[in-house]
Amino acid sequence: MYYRYLKQLESEHVHFISSTKLAELAGLTASQVRQDMSAFGGEGRQGSGYPISELRKHLERLLGIDKQHAMIIIGAGNLGCALAHYHPFHQKRFSTLEIFDNDPSKIGTTIGSFTIKSTDALEAFLSQRHVDIAVLTLPATHAQQIAERVYNSGVRAFWNFAPVDLKLPQDASIVSVHLDESLEMLSYYMLNKDG
Amino acid sequence: MYYRYLKQLESEHVHFISSTKLAELAGLTASQVRQDMSAFGGEGRQGSGYPISELRKHLERLLGIDKQHAMIIIGAGNLGCALAHYHPFHQKRFSTLEIFDNDPSKIGTTIGSFTIKSTDALEAFLSQRHVDIAVLTLPATHAQQIAERVYNSGVRAFWNFAPVDLKLPQDASIVSVHLDESLEMLSYYMLNKDG
Repeated sequence: MYYRYLKQLESEHVHFISSTKLAELAGLTASQVRQDMSAFGGEGRQGSGYPISELRKHLERLLGIDKQHAMIIIGAGNLGCALAHYHPFHQKRFSTLEIFDNDPSKIGTTIGSFTIKSTDALEAFLSQRHVDIAVLTLPATHAQQIAERVYNSGVRAFWNFAPVDLKLPQDASIVSVHLDESLEMLSYYMLNKDG
Repeated sequence: MYYRYLKQLESEHVHFISSTKLAELAGLTASQVRQDMSAFGGEGRQGSGYPISELRKHLERLLGIDKQHAMIIIGAGNLGCALAHYHPFHQKRFSTLEIFDNDPSKIGTTIGSFTIKSTDALEAFLSQRHVDIAVLTLPATHAQQIAERVYNSGVRAFWNFAPVDLKLPQDASIVSVHLDESLEMLSYYMLNKDG
């Protein structure tokens, strides 16, 4: 959250920010902000506040996004293809190597600069290339099995869009984005505002 | 979360579930589950447990997803187009009416069954059609301004994919999906597992 605000301020060419102002933006108290900033290794300057770009770089190191991450996308549906061409702020730090699918009618077809590979070729690919993150944009029914195969080939991080809770050994990092659930939550909020 | 488990069990043709089993799936205690189920209006049966499809319907009413929701998508980038053709479980309950964009090179082109409309036409469209949810898949720089215009035209629910916190009056319901941040979070988890 801090990181989002800092990037926004930087894009507005703001160079310094006080803990009071940052607290206001984030909806926190100034003392909470000072405590967090000090935990992040950020140092405020008397009178001018925190140097924004320095603080951003601290946070990037802390988040590990100062490093390159190689990704593969498994599931060449609409969402998988969108993510392959999605340009987040850190586009260069998270680069997609390949897209895989198990649908014979998709394998070999091109999506932008990618030629869709068969999931049968996953193990061979992972034995040759280092992959940090597997992005799972496939149906719930296949997600667990594919995740296990990818895990067994050495990948330890999973960005999961399948509507299922993956069960993997402790050393795997998993972040799930449940789009269905977020839409259901919105529906629930709407209903309760109406009522 | 319960809803996800219930749908999964239903698809596996399971008809009843005990609070103990549901607690196991959800990583909760059986008494928590019984409390939640009773709050949802679900009634367990001695010996057989909760009737799954009945419980699912209860939850659907509670979440408001037993009703139709008309959506518009604003921002015809990769993500916007993917969401227009995304088929969540409740596809029929959340239907996309139109996709809007402000890029002249996109306006008038077709994406699947949609012809992209100009954002200039938003107010005219919203004065004629009832729209429940605006899906914002546009850059952070435009999101707030467009959200305000859509709000002023009567839309009260926002599914926001722009990396920005929308500021709208209290009667607006907002659910944000910050894809950048979820990827940054994954990067952070990876780093801390390594360390």
